[in-house]
Amino acid sequence: MASKPPTIVTLNWLGDLRFSAATARTTITIDSAGVAGPSPVETLAIAVAGCMSMDLAHIFTKGRHAVRSLSARFVGERADTEPRRFLSITLHFVVDGDAPDSVIDRAILLSREKYCSVWHSMREDIALVVTWEREATP
Amino acid sequence: MASKPPTIVTLNWLGDLRFSAATARTTITIDSAGVAGPSPVETLAIAVAGCMSMDLAHIFTKGRHAVRSLSARFVGERADTEPRRFLSITLHFVVDGDAPDSVIDRAILLSREKYCSVWHSMREDIALVVTWEREATP
Repeated sequence: MASKPPTIVTLNWLGDLRFSAATARTTITIDSAGVAGPSPVETLAIAVAGCMSMDLAHIFTKGRHAVRSLSARFVGERADTEPRRFLSITLHFVVDGDAPDSVIDRAILLSREKYCSVWHSMREDIALVVTWEREATP
Repeated sequence: MASKPPTIVTLNWLGDLRFSAATARTTITIDSAGVAGPSPVETLAIAVAGCMSMDLAHIFTKGRHAVRSLSARFVGERADTEPRRFLSITLHFVVDGDAPDSVIDRAILLSREKYCSVWHSMREDIALVVTWEREATP
């Protein structure tokens, strides 16, 4: 069985602590100060939250559950001493759509237990709490 | 001792498998297809490569070693089966500057052993090979 192609990104220093980061088809700027672009740790947070959010969106769409909006808030606590790694993460989703509670619960479970490539590449002792609520009707 | 503030990012679904990702001061788009922005796995790759690249740039600058250019190439191999996590990573730096070999070797060692918050948040069984070369003089 042939392996999938590897993930390749290239970075180029722009001065100060800013780098241009190119993937196969896009380029973003990253910035240690978090101004010209996300910092590396913020970029990691986006990767984790993005991976699980896309799993949810994919599962809802595949199940033909109309979803009008889906948002996620990632809050990550880091160690106080170097290397200041993530110790714990909370991820909270707000869903506006027709997916029943059981589908939302199961989508979250499937992402964290089975599908999310980013989460499964993270240290196994990072605590992860995932919660969700329905968007309040205006 | 007061803890540092947590890392917070918020994501909003843009349709298809695209999300807008906002940090404290910036916003990027992420895209499962890697077209409108990096995919979550590419975003993780940028975080790892960016963290170590910024450590190097910081160490060179702090040591007053003039660095004319610094680039990094990340190649990550993933498992063939779900969750398709990273199994191994190679990171190759190309340096054009006055830092002696020993400073470059030590900067890489310090980043991976001590400073890189992103790398230290990753699974401990991911193989990481870091290499470097000097930019060829034209």
